[in-house]
Amino acid sequence: MSIRVGIYGYGNLGRGVELAIGQNEDMTAVGVFTRRAPESVKTLTGIPVYAVSEIEKWKNEIDVLILCGGSSTDLPEQTPQMAKLFNVVDSFDTHAKIPEHLKAVEEAAKSAGKTAMISAGWDPGMFSLARLYGGAVLPEGNDYTFWGKGVSQGHSDAIRRIEGVADSKQYTIPVESALERVRKGENPVLTTREKHVRECFVVAKAGADKTRIENEIKTMPNYFADYDTIVHFISQEELNEKHAGLPHGGVVIRSGETGNGNKHVIEYSLKLDSNAEFTSSVLVACARAVYRLQKEGIFGAKTLFDVPPVYLSPKTREEVIAKLL
Amino acid sequence: MSIRVGIYGYGNLGRGVELAIGQNEDMTAVGVFTRRAPESVKTLTGIPVYAVSEIEKWKNEIDVLILCGGSSTDLPEQTPQMAKLFNVVDSFDTHAKIPEHLKAVEEAAKSAGKTAMISAGWDPGMFSLARLYGGAVLPEGNDYTFWGKGVSQGHSDAIRRIEGVADSKQYTIPVESALERVRKGENPVLTTREKHVRECFVVAKAGADKTRIENEIKTMPNYFADYDTIVHFISQEELNEKHAGLPHGGVVIRSGETGNGNKHVIEYSLKLDSNAEFTSSVLVACARAVYRLQKEGIFGAKTLFDVPPVYLSPKTREEVIAKLL
Repeated sequence: MSIRVGIYGYGNLGRGVELAIGQNEDMTAVGVFTRRAPESVKTLTGIPVYAVSEIEKWKNEIDVLILCGGSSTDLPEQTPQMAKLFNVVDSFDTHAKIPEHLKAVEEAAKSAGKTAMISAGWDPGMFSLARLYGGAVLPEGNDYTFWGKGVSQGHSDAIRRIEGVADSKQYTIPVESALERVRKGENPVLTTREKHVRECFVVAKAGADKTRIENEIKTMPNYFADYDTIVHFISQEELNEKHAGLPHGGVVIRSGETGNGNKHVIEYSLKLDSNAEFTSSVLVACARAVYRLQKEGIFGAKTLFDVPPVYLSPKTREEVIAKLL
Repeated sequence: MSIRVGIYGYGNLGRGVELAIGQNEDMTAVGVFTRRAPESVKTLTGIPVYAVSEIEKWKNEIDVLILCGGSSTDLPEQTPQMAKLFNVVDSFDTHAKIPEHLKAVEEAAKSAGKTAMISAGWDPGMFSLARLYGGAVLPEGNDYTFWGKGVSQGHSDAIRRIEGVADSKQYTIPVESALERVRKGENPVLTTREKHVRECFVVAKAGADKTRIENEIKTMPNYFADYDTIVHFISQEELNEKHAGLPHGGVVIRSGETGNGNKHVIEYSLKLDSNAEFTSSVLVACARAVYRLQKEGIFGAKTLFDVPPVYLSPKTREEVIAKLL
């Protein structure tokens, strides 16, 4: 019996989910639900496209709906709404608003007898797990999270909003010397500036004042002002050719001590060619967990912290205990 | 309300558990239970020592008993026996016999309304979790586990059994070039010899034939014959001075692909000054999980695969969701 998965939204994440379902033999993609005109959307693997307005009709045809919208306006509304009709998974990643989102989804899912997983992906998600396990097994220690090297879409967008900028790509890069100090167990206190560098590739419009653009980038509050920022002006052709991908990744380190000053360093790292496809792949594994939990009568809003790891695996408990433990 | 923990056995692991309990504010060490004469055992922190033969009297005074014996003869007998009386945690690490051990412990614990966690530590344990999560989120890919650099006690012991050897320490070392190929996402097929090197520091007895000893080490089946092995003869003083510790560690890598050939590499690594103290620290976090599961009426034999991560943390669910997710 295949788990029937619906995809709500068809941007990078939705396409990634479609492809990831194809890598999991116990799952079938039912279709994509879009706010656009369905006939205007072509899916990568040919799965059907439907209008979101009709989604309620699919109540009994979908086991888990994966929500592929954005965290700022889509998910706060869509996840609680859909959790009344379906088991759902989302990648809500506005860290500060997670408790609020969890509460809204909990109320919707619980009363409907549905199960929802929120904030799945890699951060929040796999990185959160690394932080939780690290702190549990090394209670005296410090957590460090470094992001990159990778493309930050929010920062790339912020640069594109500056007057005179035609296009842009921003890479977040961990400061190698800081990373080395943490890996050695020095437990340094690091400022924002000491942890990451921001490198920007910018295409200026013809005749634009590059000095002003560079200055506006480097002094932009929240986004760049607290960092050492490097700005390169390049042509649109070079940007398209050398900076087309959306790689990302990062490192979570727990550095702690036991006994009489024995040091231990736990490091969890990701090197991802495609940020969206990896996130999608995590969402699909979480869809399996949500499906199983709901079958067992465990309803409401969950996070990766709440789910026994074995629920994520396509293998049986006996198999993972025999082969992976 | 503190979780009252008993320690069964007082070798390196038992001492590590005693120290780790002191790092967890929600726990109290009730005492050590030993097969030796209790008055002959001095504990590091002054906790009391009792005879194992009296342990049944402690049935209502201990919330979780951590079993600190060895996997070859102690745990197969002790864990099922103790699981009839107490919630228990062990570090059973004979991978091939885990299913059999799980079954024996399941039968004992389930019928007694107790909860048992088996095979906790780092491998099996944290490394197993890395393998399970890695495979779940990257279903098309390969698993790699490298151990070291670290002291293998079994291999050190094997060398000491050779005639003419006074003392010895053996380090397992990952082959850096193999590790690099895996990190690059090459997905190589690696033989035993290509993955690890074994480096041995040996103290020969006066007049012993070093050539014969070296040859016996290098050709020892299972332990050394399949590896490139380096043998150094040193003095007992140098061994005591430079090779006193029991560091260990290693790396679990999941290398996989999504979509149209996008590569992703997940790496989980441990660098441990003290193998035993880190293992103990994991056992103590697992004791917390076992205590909570039993309170909720979830009985029987569990592994880290079966436990929601939040059960391991000293923090509340609300706190970890707000701060670590």
